[in-house]
Amino acid sequence: MRLLIANPNTSATVTDRLMAAAAAVKAPGTELVPMTAPRGVPYIATRADAVVGAGVALDMLAEAHEGVDAAVIAAFGDPGLGGARELFDIPVVGMAEAAMLTACMLGRSFAIVTFSGGLVPWYHECLDWNGLRGRCAGIFALQGAFTSLADVQEEKEAALVDLANRVVAEHEADVVILAGAPLSGLAQTVRDRVPVPLVDGIQAAVKQAEALAALKPAKATTGTFRRPAAKTCTGISEPLRRRFEHRDRPDESR
Amino acid sequence: MRLLIANPNTSATVTDRLMAAAAAVKAPGTELVPMTAPRGVPYIATRADAVVGAGVALDMLAEAHEGVDAAVIAAFGDPGLGGARELFDIPVVGMAEAAMLTACMLGRSFAIVTFSGGLVPWYHECLDWNGLRGRCAGIFALQGAFTSLADVQEEKEAALVDLANRVVAEHEADVVILAGAPLSGLAQTVRDRVPVPLVDGIQAAVKQAEALAALKPAKATTGTFRRPAAKTCTGISEPLRRRFEHRDRPDESR
Amino acid sequence: MRLLIANPNTSATVTDRLMAAAAAVKAPGTELVPMTAPRGVPYIATRADAVVGAGVALDMLAEAHEGVDAAVIAAFGDPGLGGARELFDIPVVGMAEAAMLTACMLGRSFAIVTFSGGLVPWYHECLDWNGLRGRCAGIFALQGAFTSLADVQEEKEAALVDLANRVVAEHEADVVILAGAPLSGLAQTVRDRVPVPLVDGIQAAVKQAEALAALKPAKATTGTFRRPAAKTCTGISEPLRRRFEHRDRPDESR
Amino acid sequence: MRLLIANPNTSATVTDRLMAAAAAVKAPGTELVPMTAPRGVPYIATRADAVVGAGVALDMLAEAHEGVDAAVIAAFGDPGLGGARELFDIPVVGMAEAAMLTACMLGRSFAIVTFSGGLVPWYHECLDWNGLRGRCAGIFALQGAFTSLADVQEEKEAALVDLANRVVAEHEADVVILAGAPLSGLAQTVRDRVPVPLVDGIQAAVKQAEALAALKPAKATTGTFRRPAAKTCTGISEPLRRRFEHRDRPDESR
Amino acid sequence: MRLLIANPNTSATVTDRLMAAAAAVKAPGTELVPMTAPRGVPYIATRADAVVGAGVALDMLAEAHEGVDAAVIAAFGDPGLGGARELFDIPVVGMAEAAMLTACMLGRSFAIVTFSGGLVPWYHECLDWNGLRGRCAGIFALQGAFTSLADVQEEKEAALVDLANRVVAEHEADVVILAGAPLSGLAQTVRDRVPVPLVDGIQAAVKQAEALAALKPAKATTGTFRRPAAKTCTGISEPLRRRFEHRDRPDESR
Amino acid sequence: MRLLIANPNTSATVTDRLMAAAAAVKAPGTELVPMTAPRGVPYIATRADAVVGAGVALDMLAEAHEGVDAAVIAAFGDPGLGGARELFDIPVVGMAEAAMLTACMLGRSFAIVTFSGGLVPWYHECLDWNGLRGRCAGIFALQGAFTSLADVQEEKEAALVDLANRVVAEHEADVVILAGAPLSGLAQTVRDRVPVPLVDGIQAAVKQAEALAALKPAKATTGTFRRPAAKTCTGISEPLRRRFEHRDRPDESR
Repeated sequence: MRLLIANPNTSATVTDRLMAAAAAVKAPGTELVPMTAPRGVPYIATRADAVVGAGVALDMLAEAHEGVDAAVIAAFGDPGLGGARELFDIPVVGMAEAAMLTACMLGRSFAIVTFSGGLVPWYHECLDWNGLRGRCAGIFALQGAFTSLADVQEEKEAALVDLANRVVAEHEADVVILAGAPLSGLAQTVRDRVPVPLVDGIQAAVKQAEALAALKPAKATTGTFRRPAAKTCTGISEPLRRRFEHRDRPDESR
Repeated sequence: MRLLIANPNTSATVTDRLMAAAAAVKAPGTELVPMTAPRGVPYIATRADAVVGAGVALDMLAEAHEGVDAAVIAAFGDPGLGGARELFDIPVVGMAEAAMLTACMLGRSFAIVTFSGGLVPWYHECLDWNGLRGRCAGIFALQGAFTSLADVQEEKEAALVDLANRVVAEHEADVVILAGAPLSGLAQTVRDRVPVPLVDGIQAAVKQAEALAALKPAKATTGTFRRPAAKTCTGISEPLRRRFEHRDRPDESR
Repeated sequence: MRLLIANPNTSATVTDRLMAAAAAVKAPGTELVPMTAPRGVPYIATRADAVVGAGVALDMLAEAHEGVDAAVIAAFGDPGLGGARELFDIPVVGMAEAAMLTACMLGRSFAIVTFSGGLVPWYHECLDWNGLRGRCAGIFALQGAFTSLADVQEEKEAALVDLANRVVAEHEADVVILAGAPLSGLAQTVRDRVPVPLVDGIQAAVKQAEALAALKPAKATTGTFRRPAAKTCTGISEPLRRRFEHRDRPDESR
Repeated sequence: MRLLIANPNTSATVTDRLMAAAAAVKAPGTELVPMTAPRGVPYIATRADAVVGAGVALDMLAEAHEGVDAAVIAAFGDPGLGGARELFDIPVVGMAEAAMLTACMLGRSFAIVTFSGGLVPWYHECLDWNGLRGRCAGIFALQGAFTSLADVQEEKEAALVDLANRVVAEHEADVVILAGAPLSGLAQTVRDRVPVPLVDGIQAAVKQAEALAALKPAKATTGTFRRPAAKTCTGISEPLRRRFEHRDRPDESR
Repeated sequence: MRLLIANPNTSATVTDRLMAAAAAVKAPGTELVPMTAPRGVPYIATRADAVVGAGVALDMLAEAHEGVDAAVIAAFGDPGLGGARELFDIPVVGMAEAAMLTACMLGRSFAIVTFSGGLVPWYHECLDWNGLRGRCAGIFALQGAFTSLADVQEEKEAALVDLANRVVAEHEADVVILAGAPLSGLAQTVRDRVPVPLVDGIQAAVKQAEALAALKPAKATTGTFRRPAAKTCTGISEPLRRRFEHRDRPDESR
Repeated sequence: MRLLIANPNTSATVTDRLMAAAAAVKAPGTELVPMTAPRGVPYIATRADAVVGAGVALDMLAEAHEGVDAAVIAAFGDPGLGGARELFDIPVVGMAEAAMLTACMLGRSFAIVTFSGGLVPWYHECLDWNGLRGRCAGIFALQGAFTSLADVQEEKEAALVDLANRVVAEHEADVVILAGAPLSGLAQTVRDRVPVPLVDGIQAAVKQAEALAALKPAKATTGTFRRPAAKTCTGISEPLRRRFEHRDRPDESR
């Protein structure tokens, strides 16, 4: 089984974090195919960034969806997920979605803990989009700046553990999601320092993508997630335009 | 007062429809500035289209936000609205948002009636994004194809009136929103054939944009709708990149 | 365009506040017609007051709805709004409703800040009546008494600014509504001291009433907001009785 | 124990219906004190009627609350209930409220069935005010006119039974509330013709009022249901004014 | 009228508490029939305990439902309530349910206050099962251990009063439910020390059971609360098995 | 990896169905350990059955949780799931839960389709317990009786396909869950006859259990899903009693 790990941020160091955490939980037969955004923003952190990132995510899947069995949009917040699920035939999983759904099986209420307050509003919209408001004990972020995205995980490790512990104590969270691609792998590192289960977004997403790929769900041919009829587009990437216009290469015409 | 009417679809005939309906209700001192998407899809009708349209909408506002007092994103579904509200200092109004909020003052529950079933899922997500599920009597669409976007309003006039009447009778709708930019102006034409108030998206949006421009709300300098800090971007339109990177032209640096 | 500003409180000083704030934002061609409650309570502040105020509001509109294009029920909490919308043919807007719907276009979540804790429960019911719970970051009031309704705005200015700032910082409010007719005009005064947009109830209501009057929505002739069939009443004001009994004066029989 | 049965409609025949149904279920030691509205509308059926009826209900309780142990506002829709609960020291129960809460103990979802479509919107607002939307399978009304309020129960008996049966079959209602004061007693008559439990509003209200009177809950002295501070009023009934102004007669000054 | 007070905990001292509080409010003609769980856990305090307790509650009702007019499942959390309502023909009331519904008639929002934090999650699930989330100001528990279930009421009296007062002040609760069978009777003792009405679970349940027994609702013969068709069971108590298998004793075959 | 497939129904034929469907999707290294309820009801179909089934499920897990990496409670409706998650240290997944969460990744709204109307109310409660009401397009059942549980899948195949197709067409379901353990494997058989993805409960549950087992979440040591403190029980199965009383066998004392 081949899984595309599409990082819609342009930061290759984030892709490295994602791949390391993903590799730690993937099934023996799973091959992970990494991809870093060729354009866009270094790190999606606002609604405006997410607009850009959503377009980039569709570009990336248009480029790489052939020959993989499922794809992960590897930014917490899941930019472009709904559109991707319409356009492509393979299962596509969002990192936030996978983390939240997985957390639902480990308790009644999950908290989302992240490293930057700027991320919170976008995460709230993502939570609502998933219809999981009733399962969420809150979304919590560290205050203050961080030095570098590449090392924020180490820089803020102690502060994040503190915040997670406070959230568990004060907000009755049964599970804590450590959110944001730059934190990939941190849950593993600090699992013994928080008294409830931790969920790592990319690890959850890899397992959910494997699950969907194994279940081989049919692509909808009617309704809201069928592939849209061909339509002409201008000013978008060539692979995405081919996909919109149903000019698939021979081997992608399922 | 100058209002930008940004049509994120590439169909100029739709822009013409929008402008005619807008002109019929604008205040005497309001100047409407039309703009048609320079790239993207002819008509935004799915989640995937909306991803593209959201990026296009940001491009358009980046290009044209200077020298206008407020802007309307003139596609029902409001692609890119949240991001636009972060990035720009002027009020930005979505057509669906304006229609729904206006409808709330005309009754308890509004129905949304449109010409193509493909639009319904995207409209549902828009309704939820606005948190107005409890005020909505349902979203209803004609079945079957239409001949051309430019003339769908005339082609389907009788069918839409029938559907609106059925929805009022069966779903207790107090107000009906005729949704979709190609239907702009139709509410005026058929108002005597439906027994409840009709709301036209672009007309509602123009009045709401005028209201906001008159109220001159301060731009947030903190929290979730402050302007995001400068960040480097690649592969996006030059005006949008300048806005993301805080390289505004002298006259836009408020 | 003529707008009735119906203050269902008996305090004329409150009417003066309302008119001053309204005049600051009205469109050039708008004439504002003030009216102070001829009976009732000095200031509506509880559910019991609102029962009285709702009856008074209907009396006032029955007396004055002829010859105006729209009306504002100028008490935050909107006493009698639903009934007024049934009984009369012109658009009727509530001050709380208008403030909340306007706030929705300026951010995701609004906070309501007011000067007296006694008002909070009634405002909560008003929020729920509007179905906007999901958009509200909370309703917050100063503690402690105030000296006079006429001057509460000046007396509590600093405290209200402090409270608004605290609410923005702690409850992630994107917008703050300064609520209560006695605070009319305050938003303008303190706008530079709060880092998010402020909404003034009467100013929002005037703009929304202008918007509705310009859109000229048809009066429902079916369903829940059609004019109720004539029915005999006793013990109510003569103008209201005439309206209930369909004994309109010649010029009001639309 | 003495219970006030306050009918805020001016129809004495409705009071008779209420009393007969109430008498059939009251406890041995309970004395029922009937009261018909001295002013207002013959039958509260719209939001505008409810505004009038709410004021009338407060007048009636102000007049008669002394010397009774609890009161029932005997119109489905509960006009003035919140205000009454603030103003008076005795327990006050609404007929709709009592019916819905009682129904909650007889199944998961209740349907509300009534004789006139005009009542439905008001009942929906009442349902929401009680926060019981999630327990309600729907509100359903007969179509078409009826001859007289006094005899609507007999005239529409068969049609109401049919409707109740259809609602049970199609909407999975576990319980049916026969709503509206003119239907008082009907549930008893037709109980063998509907396959789920029926709830009669006045009968539920009498039992709930008895329950509250027996539990003797303390009157709140803080928060949202404490008695409001004395305030001057004009243009309202003398007993209500005395109550607002804390000029209680000696024996009512608890 | 005979009411079964079924305590699904094995602690007889708790049954004594329940009976004393119940006796203080029962109607003159009501006979209370106490029953203590013959098996299970001393005190139901977790979801796992509630699984056991639900089975025990059904056993107890199967044993004792004949010859009583209604039954109370006398554990806050209402284990087995839905199943009991299907299986048996008499009204069955849960203690949490009765407390919450009664509280709804005494204010807009109730708080639940209890003596042990371990109970909170289970109470939250019970609140949601009743669909009353929107009426609840929160569920609050003392921290720390207690010495004995039999005397926790006296041991924690002062702390519970403090907590109730804090909850009223900080969470705008209109009513406080003192929850948990071991606290039965406490509301009476401390009523003058909390400024809002207090609700005692067993007292509310007795009055609600009396109300239902007086209203004599028909047993559903269709839909979700009809008696399930006979089915063979193994490994359950003999009385419950007879009830499942429709092998009722002659006098219970209604 | 070893997964316990605990069927809390006493029907061994249902266990066979479950195992066949599970085997078709399990990962190469997964060993499935089947277990059929030693007591209880043949098929859990009502709330009363679920009370019994929940107790049986805890008994089964107490008996068999050692030596497996995760467990599935293999009845749609998930009897005892919350309690199991408290009591045991391994991940426990419910079949309904797994089906619904998996469906969330395949569309916005899922419908639940089953073979017997008696199951619907219980499934509704399960849906609410999972907080997924907003994602569900409805729960739909065939009308009429079936011949045998063992063969209901073949007997009703055509009718279920028809119902699924109708639900997709009329209720805008993006995904259909074929619910009920006796339908295990049917989704595979009929996947080409329904135009949207189908979800099979046991197959989803196996993949989710594998995912959780691979992620190795820590057992909570605080909060609502920590293992409850030891307490004495009577009249329950010996293995369950040992687990409640913390008298684990040596190799289960983690």
